[in-house]
Amino acid sequence: MTATLITNIGELTTNVEAAGDPCATLTDAAVLCEGSRVAWVGPADDPVVERARRGTTAVVDAAGRAVIPGFVDSHTHLVFAGDRADEFAARMAGQPYAAGGIRTTVTATRAASDDELRRRLIGLVAELHAQGTTTFEIKTGYGLTVHDEARLARLAAEVTPEVTFLGAHVVPAEYVDAREAYVELVCGAMLSACAPHARWIDVFCETGAFTADESRCVLEAGLARGLRPRVHGNQLGPGAGVQLAVALGAASVDHCTYLSDDDIAALAGSDTVATLLPGVEFSTRHPYPDARRLIDAGVRVALASDCNPGTSFTSSMPLMIALAVREMGMTVPEAVWAATAGGARALRRNDIGVITAGARADLVVLDAPSRTHLAYRPGVPLVHAVYKDGQRL
Amino acid sequence: MTATLITNIGELTTNVEAAGDPCATLTDAAVLCEGSRVAWVGPADDPVVERARRGTTAVVDAAGRAVIPGFVDSHTHLVFAGDRADEFAARMAGQPYAAGGIRTTVTATRAASDDELRRRLIGLVAELHAQGTTTFEIKTGYGLTVHDEARLARLAAEVTPEVTFLGAHVVPAEYVDAREAYVELVCGAMLSACAPHARWIDVFCETGAFTADESRCVLEAGLARGLRPRVHGNQLGPGAGVQLAVALGAASVDHCTYLSDDDIAALAGSDTVATLLPGVEFSTRHPYPDARRLIDAGVRVALASDCNPGTSFTSSMPLMIALAVREMGMTVPEAVWAATAGGARALRRNDIGVITAGARADLVVLDAPSRTHLAYRPGVPLVHAVYKDGQRL
Ligand SMILES: [Zn+2]
Ligand SMILES: [Zn+2]
Repeated sequence: MTATLITNIGELTTNVEAAGDPCATLTDAAVLCEGSRVAWVGPADDPVVERARRGTTAVVDAAGRAVIPGFVDSHTHLVFAGDRADEFAARMAGQPYAAGGIRTTVTATRAASDDELRRRLIGLVAELHAQGTTTFEIKTGYGLTVHDEARLARLAAEVTPEVTFLGAHVVPAEYVDAREAYVELVCGAMLSACAPHARWIDVFCETGAFTADESRCVLEAGLARGLRPRVHGNQLGPGAGVQLAVALGAASVDHCTYLSDDDIAALAGSDTVATLLPGVEFSTRHPYPDARRLIDAGVRVALASDCNPGTSFTSSMPLMIALAVREMGMTVPEAVWAATAGGARALRRNDIGVITAGARADLVVLDAPSRTHLAYRPGVPLVHAVYKDGQRL
Repeated sequence: MTATLITNIGELTTNVEAAGDPCATLTDAAVLCEGSRVAWVGPADDPVVERARRGTTAVVDAAGRAVIPGFVDSHTHLVFAGDRADEFAARMAGQPYAAGGIRTTVTATRAASDDELRRRLIGLVAELHAQGTTTFEIKTGYGLTVHDEARLARLAAEVTPEVTFLGAHVVPAEYVDAREAYVELVCGAMLSACAPHARWIDVFCETGAFTADESRCVLEAGLARGLRPRVHGNQLGPGAGVQLAVALGAASVDHCTYLSDDDIAALAGSDTVATLLPGVEFSTRHPYPDARRLIDAGVRVALASDCNPGTSFTSSMPLMIALAVREMGMTVPEAVWAATAGGARALRRNDIGVITAGARADLVVLDAPSRTHLAYRPGVPLVHAVYKDGQRL
């Protein structure tokens, strides 16, 4: 079993609550990784460190750098073809743009071969890793036929266990006059074809996408097949997404820009995480969600990229942190927690998002003395090294 | 003389005006670099490409990627010690912070050895290069004694020819009751000590920094010593900075958030560039300057990072482009022009910021099919390769 000791860590974010602070850090720390797991965390001057130096353990000197858990990006749409750069440029310039929307990507994705989709997916995964993301979820939703959704779920499962079936992303063009039939298809043959590859089921519960009743049908069908629910909701206006997510015990409800006091209360009294996706607001000029209001009410908040070619073609978790601090009222410790432990909660995982004995050895050495630099130095690539399952990527 | 041909460029931004469009691009293009200069630019199917392939020229296949001129960051403060991460975090959290400001960095910088300053500077230069910046200006201004300003100018000159003497950054603590004497020092002994290392003179003309009269004295003293003027102005409120800059033929006036119609008219009728620094607004939550108003009035606009530890500790020109598009009303072509050719104008350089025969072979191969991705994919490191003076960095 390979062992690696990272020592001389200037600031270590463990995400292990200490003295009532969920975001506490250790200074002058060391982490011992054995195999794919963290075996020990403690002060750099502990005898454990001296013993490791004398043994066969590989010793890495972090030279005072900060170390954080690997980012957990709990919301992405990474399997697709085409891009929508022209649509983006037109939107930013305030110009009309005839085509566009999810259906543009659906058309391109259906037309792409498995190899083409796989090649692009592998490129994006490398991009995520290079930016410190060690766990990521991927949704289907650009196939919208039984065949294509199953294809996307299968391809996604090649690179992550966190696969989400999102047949209910949008009603495809060929079903606009038969939405009932489309919902039946999603809950029937499409679900059957995708469930073997997926862990999660998701629905876009929003005016213009799926109604509360339709959304409930989809999520309950998924639950009956052993998938666990998550929801896109309350993005563009008030809606039923949050209440539905809480009622069904969803792991997360994502976007959460338009929330009533009742929505907040429901979230605060639940295990459902509110996942905020500021890349979307950055790329669409919509208002940012109010993270402060959520956190102050006791809601658990995660940050994710929503990486997709239409509304947030970024995979940068550091930028999500910078935006959360600049635009959403989060402190740096809260934002870093939300991008790591928060994402883990949103995926109901307790083996990631923390650095403690027994957790997966997924961690990022930053080219910075503290995690504050992730917001203080926006846009600057600050990833010095990434470890996933104890192996340097 | 080494020669490199980059071919199969999907989209080439030359910044050579074509058919009235200053931001025109070539598609399916090739660039031939000989020594430190561009020797030829043309279509990838030109016979020149075939000949180069048969000769000793190194041929690089860009595989459809976009190529742009290297970024020209015409406004940085890269020589300093210490950081102000805690001040940043307090500001973002809306908390009071006792110390802080430029003087904090002055204290740390004075206390640092040449070797310490050099080591940090080299690290930042590597960071700039990795993000596609091939030319950068550096200001003094954290020394504020004759000895320390000369030291910073000398260290800056080790890494760039574009060194700016900014003794008039702020009145140092020891001169608060003797500002007249400080301005005399700046215009006298300090200028004499720095001029041999510098090309430019700058002043922070703003309420709380230097008055219009003081600023004029400083700039005229610099002009008399052969330095060329540039100005920090109109950042925090209306002021005399723009008018002074235009009157003295400054290459650039930087910040430009608070401008009167007269200021805009003066800039439009001049050779003075308006350099916008959106990293500052991102990091301080001040309002962004209105680039659209400037461009529509015919003002030449540059984008720069203002990289400094207090108000904009970012060196990311791609993020400046994304912010200019998201927040300041610029189109992507305008923003890319401003971050390359605009920066060159702000440094009165015509050998950089363009890709054309005779220009320096400073260029960036993007991991993207078009420059639009620099704004469309915010925060994502998209630099595939950087060439400076014809050499791959
Ligand atoms: Zn989404
Ligand atoms: Zn500045």
